[in-house]
Amino acid sequence: MNIAVAQSGGPTCAINASLLGVFRTGIQYTEIDTVYGSLNGIEGLIYNNLVDLNTVITSDEELELIRQTPSTVLGSCRYKLPQPEDDKAVYETITKNLKDHNIKAFFYIGGNDSMDTVVKLSRYFKNEGEDIKVIGIPKTIDNDLPHTDHTPGFGSAAKYVATTLQEITRDSSVYSAKSVTIVEIMGRDTGWLTASSVLLRANSNSAPHLIYLPEKPFSVSKFLDDVVKMQEKYPSVIVAVSEGVSLSSDEAGEDFTSGKEDIFGHKYLAGVGKALEKIVSREIGCKVRSIELNVMQRCSSHLSSGNDIAEAENIGAAAVKEMMSGKTGVMMTFERLGNKPYNLRIGCVEAEKVANHVKYFPDEWIAENNCDVTHRALEYFLPLIHGEPSIRIKNGLPAHFVLSKEN
Amino acid sequence: MNIAVAQSGGPTCAINASLLGVFRTGIQYTEIDTVYGSLNGIEGLIYNNLVDLNTVITSDEELELIRQTPSTVLGSCRYKLPQPEDDKAVYETITKNLKDHNIKAFFYIGGNDSMDTVVKLSRYFKNEGEDIKVIGIPKTIDNDLPHTDHTPGFGSAAKYVATTLQEITRDSSVYSAKSVTIVEIMGRDTGWLTASSVLLRANSNSAPHLIYLPEKPFSVSKFLDDVVKMQEKYPSVIVAVSEGVSLSSDEAGEDFTSGKEDIFGHKYLAGVGKALEKIVSREIGCKVRSIELNVMQRCSSHLSSGNDIAEAENIGAAAVKEMMSGKTGVMMTFERLGNKPYNLRIGCVEAEKVANHVKYFPDEWIAENNCDVTHRALEYFLPLIHGEPSIRIKNGLPAHFVLSKEN
Repeated sequence: MNIAVAQSGGPTCAINASLLGVFRTGIQYTEIDTVYGSLNGIEGLIYNNLVDLNTVITSDEELELIRQTPSTVLGSCRYKLPQPEDDKAVYETITKNLKDHNIKAFFYIGGNDSMDTVVKLSRYFKNEGEDIKVIGIPKTIDNDLPHTDHTPGFGSAAKYVATTLQEITRDSSVYSAKSVTIVEIMGRDTGWLTASSVLLRANSNSAPHLIYLPEKPFSVSKFLDDVVKMQEKYPSVIVAVSEGVSLSSDEAGEDFTSGKEDIFGHKYLAGVGKALEKIVSREIGCKVRSIELNVMQRCSSHLSSGNDIAEAENIGAAAVKEMMSGKTGVMMTFERLGNKPYNLRIGCVEAEKVANHVKYFPDEWIAENNCDVTHRALEYFLPLIHGEPSIRIKNGLPAHFVLSKEN
Repeated sequence: MNIAVAQSGGPTCAINASLLGVFRTGIQYTEIDTVYGSLNGIEGLIYNNLVDLNTVITSDEELELIRQTPSTVLGSCRYKLPQPEDDKAVYETITKNLKDHNIKAFFYIGGNDSMDTVVKLSRYFKNEGEDIKVIGIPKTIDNDLPHTDHTPGFGSAAKYVATTLQEITRDSSVYSAKSVTIVEIMGRDTGWLTASSVLLRANSNSAPHLIYLPEKPFSVSKFLDDVVKMQEKYPSVIVAVSEGVSLSSDEAGEDFTSGKEDIFGHKYLAGVGKALEKIVSREIGCKVRSIELNVMQRCSSHLSSGNDIAEAENIGAAAVKEMMSGKTGVMMTFERLGNKPYNLRIGCVEAEKVANHVKYFPDEWIAENNCDVTHRALEYFLPLIHGEPSIRIKNGLPAHFVLSKEN
């Protein structure tokens, strides 16, 4: 028999490590002949774009390069499967392509939308009596999947955010004049990544002085009060704000047009950070700068977390073992057994308990003033950014693996 | 006798290494008793804010931390000295404070404005018959100082830009749909840092597909033509554009309000990248994203260039030796003796030949189509980003040295 693996949704630094976990474990089973990669997520199963990963990964060196390459070596997609009753043809196409390649299991590495695909596909195969297993492998920098302690990809994103915010803090503190620096961090619905900025406190930084998450209502007037109060203690106030904070338009007026994306997937001109910069400049009048960490949060693999990359590979490997033990329609999960020492157990959960559900940042980890997070949150984040993988350098730059030679 | 050192202008990753060069070499001379640090640049000499660096740097560990800390541990300023004939009082204050501390030499680490200070101060001391020497140590991520092969701080900024642009390229290439990614890079007057994006080609990237520098006129219609042409070859077009490109307002209309800063030092709402994003969205209609690398270009010391940091320390050390040999009113320089092997000679030049002069990116290194740079430029950049300093990590983050405990 053969198996197939695909990557989906927004890129991360760890999604290629999970691919390696599936590949390396898959080829160890004598029952498994070929591990196929499906190009551009589930689209590869629909359009029959499958590559034998043995022909792609031909040496240990390539394997190492894939591990340190950000984004998805097999490409990605945002395709959402219809319900079988609405469009059975696409399911039949997928089934045919899988059967033509004797593929008995499909591993889908992705976030919430991908788990929806895992649920639909596995249910369809069961109903049709097809012996094809479907396993979800979590991945998202948003860390918003339920039933898992955290998601692969999040630790590296948090390490990038904290490292960069610490450097921005140094940069912002050189002049004697008062200033405000507003850093906009990804997370449209949940504040996990923005909250991880609290990691700076582990190294005696007072920054970030204010942290705003989408889980709490945001008020412009309270924000201005918070900033002015902080300026009494700190000449350079550092603000970490989630792109997803929502505020009433009557309060913000034209300054604010939300961090939401338009149909082309790009943001409206004024994101949260830029809007708050304008407001601080007008209402407080001090030096102010806004910084959007943008896609660097999800692709800066030169700064990835050693724990994150190792866990991503391990959870990919465990997915193959679960499949071999008969599981289908599940998503792999992490359970944290302890912090000292940090210890994880890998398990799995019904994918339908994850798909289309969101895990919000816990209310009890948000400080009472709604503009900070607690020490308990810091303890949760710390092990996730631990460890620095050694990176192969070529000509002063990290060496990358590129499947297509187009870019 | 004693000496003093100060840091000025915009932060870089290498300016603290130059400070160490002055400090470590200064304390080796038996003639020199104390190396003072002047807080917030020249302002420290005016307001008598001087610290004995021996009381600040008390161990080898602190020394190492300073070397890997971005920005300026002694603070910075944007203060421009008046002409002595316009305001002699400030010169008299500086002279008094220096003499009160028996300071016979002042080292100013900075860019163009700082060299102006070196010229004025050294001239004043000569005219007044004061035996106080003034030496400039170059520093700027802009690389725009004449009479030196390059400036400390530039190599680390170029390494950040190239590393990040390579990761953005991977991130932008995951979907099958056509897209344009516009990366706005610092450099208001010169294109050195934007041009350094060509470093990606050393590692077989086709990106960046288009490079626009402020040294050449920018035309929106030609830009759109360039993008459309590139889209025929590359589904994901990566554009590196300098914040300083200038275009006629009649062509761009309201989309474009220049990358210039206002009196608070922050940018107008729409920078070049955001303006071009809007134009591509409207005129071409494909997926488009703009990314501003912002201050991360100058403060990402977790990614600094080994050569840059070593050279910055060496040029600081050499400055002390030049002073001891009797020099004043000069700026330290690098002369490149060869690329294979890469070999530098440190020298110096009259500071007045640097102050208020700008070194533009060479015309012969810009490709004929005005949207690319040549292989010769790549060869110039390559050694500047070579080497990865080992970074001390604490709690998963680079350890930093902070003089004031305020931030």
